[in-house]
Amino acid sequence: MAPRRKKIYEGKAKILYEGTEPGTLVQYFKDDATAFNAQKKATIEGKGVLNNRLSEFFMQGLTNIGVPNHFIRRINMREQLIRQVEIIPLEVIVRNFAAGSLSKRLGLEEGTQLPRPIVEYSFKNDELGDPMVSEEYVIAFGWASQQDLDDIVSLALRVNDFLSGVFFGVGIKLVDFKIEIGRIWDGDFMRLIVADEISPDSCRLWDVKTGQKLDKDVFRRDLGSLTDAYTEVARRLGLMPANATPMNKPTLIN
Amino acid sequence: MAPRRKKIYEGKAKILYEGTEPGTLVQYFKDDATAFNAQKKATIEGKGVLNNRLSEFFMQGLTNIGVPNHFIRRINMREQLIRQVEIIPLEVIVRNFAAGSLSKRLGLEEGTQLPRPIVEYSFKNDELGDPMVSEEYVIAFGWASQQDLDDIVSLALRVNDFLSGVFFGVGIKLVDFKIEIGRIWDGDFMRLIVADEISPDSCRLWDVKTGQKLDKDVFRRDLGSLTDAYTEVARRLGLMPANATPMNKPTLIN
Ligand SMILES: Nc1ncnc2c1ncn2[C@@H]1O[C@H](COP(=O)(O)OP(=O)(O)O)[C@@H](O)[C@H]1O
Ligand SMILES: Nc1ncnc2c1ncn2[C@@H]1O[C@H](COP(=O)(O)OP(=O)(O)O)[C@@H](O)[C@H]1O
Ligand SMILES: [Mg+2]
Ligand SMILES: [Mg+2]
Repeated sequence: MAPRRKKIYEGKAKILYEGTEPGTLVQYFKDDATAFNAQKKATIEGKGVLNNRLSEFFMQGLTNIGVPNHFIRRINMREQLIRQVEIIPLEVIVRNFAAGSLSKRLGLEEGTQLPRPIVEYSFKNDELGDPMVSEEYVIAFGWASQQDLDDIVSLALRVNDFLSGVFFGVGIKLVDFKIEIGRIWDGDFMRLIVADEISPDSCRLWDVKTGQKLDKDVFRRDLGSLTDAYTEVARRLGLMPANATPMNKPTLIN
Repeated sequence: MAPRRKKIYEGKAKILYEGTEPGTLVQYFKDDATAFNAQKKATIEGKGVLNNRLSEFFMQGLTNIGVPNHFIRRINMREQLIRQVEIIPLEVIVRNFAAGSLSKRLGLEEGTQLPRPIVEYSFKNDELGDPMVSEEYVIAFGWASQQDLDDIVSLALRVNDFLSGVFFGVGIKLVDFKIEIGRIWDGDFMRLIVADEISPDSCRLWDVKTGQKLDKDVFRRDLGSLTDAYTEVARRLGLMPANATPMNKPTLIN
């Protein structure tokens, strides 16, 4: 944490500070965990460090395959420099298997494979509890245009193909995930890029063999140690020594 | 190998036998390696076993994300059951970094990142040495229609996003790869699906940290043991015990 930097916004899991150059922000990953619209809260030592490193890893992978995103570089264990965007106030959710709210809404058993990946949207608004919205709502309320939505779906499905591969290669099933999308401008030209974070806070990740949950559901449902779960994800992806034991200050590789 | 089965075709690396049900074939993976249009040849014990298992793994992953392909199930260490297709006589190559023939043709240093993934085609014809062809050629000679090619590019780019993810997650860079596409019919409806194989025979794979080659270039360029390289790929993907030493009969996990 850099006390000299001006704080721009403090959210539930991260703080945004003024960046080192114009058009950038510093994203600081807190150890705070919240669930059920912040009705359940805890501080989980080490979570911020793990998510900062994991989000860096996934965003770099997306950069490699040409999916534009806000990541510029990691600054330290808890901070990364990002491009400042104008956030579209939607949670863009991609689901491969039924879980969570979809299971509840449609009475589908958790883990049921969907006929194809489903992209859905929640309006990002804490007071309202992030209600699900349709494309009609998104367009009518001017949060995004039809063209934006077409681009968002393309981006979201590419992220899904890529992340499904990343996790498939290390024995993890990508059940669903959520991303946020932001606008950047180059003169008059607007582009949509992936923003916020990609981490076990924003994905549902199940071990292929055992079904063990390796994501924020461990916290939501009191299934054990959240840092153990996130450490296991980082370990499989080669970001921690093979014999890493979860600890308050995880030893990350490079 | 099932001597009772009728041999349909013997190629350089695989043999096709009549399948167990109509519309299927048995694909047998040989240990034969060839390069430079079969001017260089060798038998590499264990290669067939590794490629059979690895191709199964990648095709299953593609099935999971809804990319249609010919894989039905593995029969034994060297054989898998596949859907019989009418092969489009093209090698569909996707390149993320310059290497091999592209480096030579354009004088680009191997490893140069391309501005975006490039899809290209070779006409599959051993006598002619699999010459590169443009979309104009493909359409003019009737190997595929413009609509087919659009679908092929979409398939190829999805395979690229997925495989890039699989390898990124285990510290390997996907430099380029080749797939073959085939037609299947359901009554009057024709669909294009991924066929042939996906393995270190058909990909260029470089270790991210060391640049070490983990693909058929090890054989083409006499860089050491090919089974060592392929075993390392299988090991990272959790298909062999962590302490696996390359051997003639690799011990595969399940
Ligand atoms: N590149 C970016 N530029 C501007 N804002 C961003 C960017 N990436 C993420 N954000 C916003 O920063 C905040 C991240 O903090 P977080 O704790 O997740 O907040 P919240 O509780 O609102 O979800 C979110 O409001 C998110 O929309
Ligand atoms: N699903 C399939 N149905 C029919 N033919 C296939 C299928 N998958 C691959 N093939 C063909 O089977 C042969 C595989 O054997 P291989 O040793 O690779 O042959 P080649 O030396 O011709 O490349 C190739 O000719 C390939 O086009
Ligand atoms: Mg948030
Ligand atoms: Mg072949």
